[in-house]
Amino acid sequence: MIIVGEKINTSRRSISEAAEKKDAEFILMMAREQAEAGAGFIDVNAGTFLDQEVDRLCWLVETVQGGLDLPLCLDSPNPDALAEAMKRHKGEPMINSISLEPDRYRSLLPVITSRPCRVIALCMAETSMPTTVEERFTVAAELISRLTGEGIPLEKIYVDPLVQPVSVDTNMGLAVLGAIRRIMEAFPGVNTICGLSNISYGLPHRHLINRNFLAVAIASGLNAAILDPTDRQLMATLLSIELLLGRDEYCQNYIEAYENGRLVA
Amino acid sequence: MIIVGEKINTSRRSISEAAEKKDAEFILMMAREQAEAGAGFIDVNAGTFLDQEVDRLCWLVETVQGGLDLPLCLDSPNPDALAEAMKRHKGEPMINSISLEPDRYRSLLPVITSRPCRVIALCMAETSMPTTVEERFTVAAELISRLTGEGIPLEKIYVDPLVQPVSVDTNMGLAVLGAIRRIMEAFPGVNTICGLSNISYGLPHRHLINRNFLAVAIASGLNAAILDPTDRQLMATLLSIELLLGRDEYCQNYIEAYENGRLVA
Repeated sequence: MIIVGEKINTSRRSISEAAEKKDAEFILMMAREQAEAGAGFIDVNAGTFLDQEVDRLCWLVETVQGGLDLPLCLDSPNPDALAEAMKRHKGEPMINSISLEPDRYRSLLPVITSRPCRVIALCMAETSMPTTVEERFTVAAELISRLTGEGIPLEKIYVDPLVQPVSVDTNMGLAVLGAIRRIMEAFPGVNTICGLSNISYGLPHRHLINRNFLAVAIASGLNAAILDPTDRQLMATLLSIELLLGRDEYCQNYIEAYENGRLVA
Repeated sequence: MIIVGEKINTSRRSISEAAEKKDAEFILMMAREQAEAGAGFIDVNAGTFLDQEVDRLCWLVETVQGGLDLPLCLDSPNPDALAEAMKRHKGEPMINSISLEPDRYRSLLPVITSRPCRVIALCMAETSMPTTVEERFTVAAELISRLTGEGIPLEKIYVDPLVQPVSVDTNMGLAVLGAIRRIMEAFPGVNTICGLSNISYGLPHRHLINRNFLAVAIASGLNAAILDPTDRQLMATLLSIELLLGRDEYCQNYIEAYENGRLVA
């Protein structure tokens, strides 16, 4: 399971303040904390800075990689911000995200083909948000076909089926789970990734829904997630599911987490 | 989701003591508590009473149904105990359980065909415990074929894939989940049921594993479970999963549980 730590996002007030005053120590602490908790990538997002986004995103990249040897997930719909951030990034970043929306696709394609990277391909159609499994699969197949046609290996594509709230439409959980299963079966080698929190929008006890959603999404084939790895209940769910799906030899990770006091029951 | 409340089992000390002194009030309280928490069936098991099992099981049946209008799950490998308990049971009981073991099959068949009942069919082969999906499916198919051949409707058969500990073999989770999916796909209308706690045998924080196992088992097609419905974290998992699988219209059950303070996050 590939974990992208989601916390360094300027939509969070503490991150916004740290980016504002360029408090490198705080940002690096947030990055290290996530890495220690199991993140394989650290997401960086400075979207709230609007016309200063390029500057702040580049600063985040240099700050995090200045003290931590981990690839980042460069999170922006802005091609200029991504292009500049990629230049400063050491190693192979993950780009979050391209989609089938014509403007976004056209402007991001040169960026993601400019050097080796992983790319999150959002199941957003040319004209509308997908609702069904079928719609998501159609968009995913088209994106995979185009991106591999541009020379991006299947193994570097992370399809995001686009999670929408069950409070808006109770079929939204099934639609995402079905899409994950279908995409993973149709394109062996591709990855699926998603954020969790949209699923529970508008409902009480959101963390409870989010972590159960993670459980069934992994069982449906999800192999990457954008989440807060310092959420111990969420990580306990993840450890349990990996154990139950036969991916934890000798139950070693589970028992180790227990012995280190990290396993919240 | 059909919930069989597991608590009235004389292997639990408080139940054994109550059955010993025929404390009907205590037994009835345990039954009502489970019914209020969502049980559709109340399991009754007096196995520890050995040569007094028939007497105590019949007493449990009369005691519970004396104060609660709910069908019971009569839980014993002993055909005499089951036959006597069935005579005292009002309505249609669930019988727990028949299997392919020759003696058990032969002696229980007349009992379960003596009057209408639901029957739990344990994936226990003639000679050995199953380990793989394939072995479980083979036993299930044979049991379904035989039982429907005897006139038991498919809808009244509850196949138990036989949960074994992941601590013994890390593939045991996948084997059960795969068997559930395969049985439910191959025999539309049949039910699958299991107990949860064997999965976590020998590991710390068993409840954490048990409830995550319930989550992925339901997502694989499990439609009945033998569990403790008064375990609020377990029931919160169940409510979340039903919500995520599109089975909770307007998120009504989830929100109601929250409003009643029953939803533990």
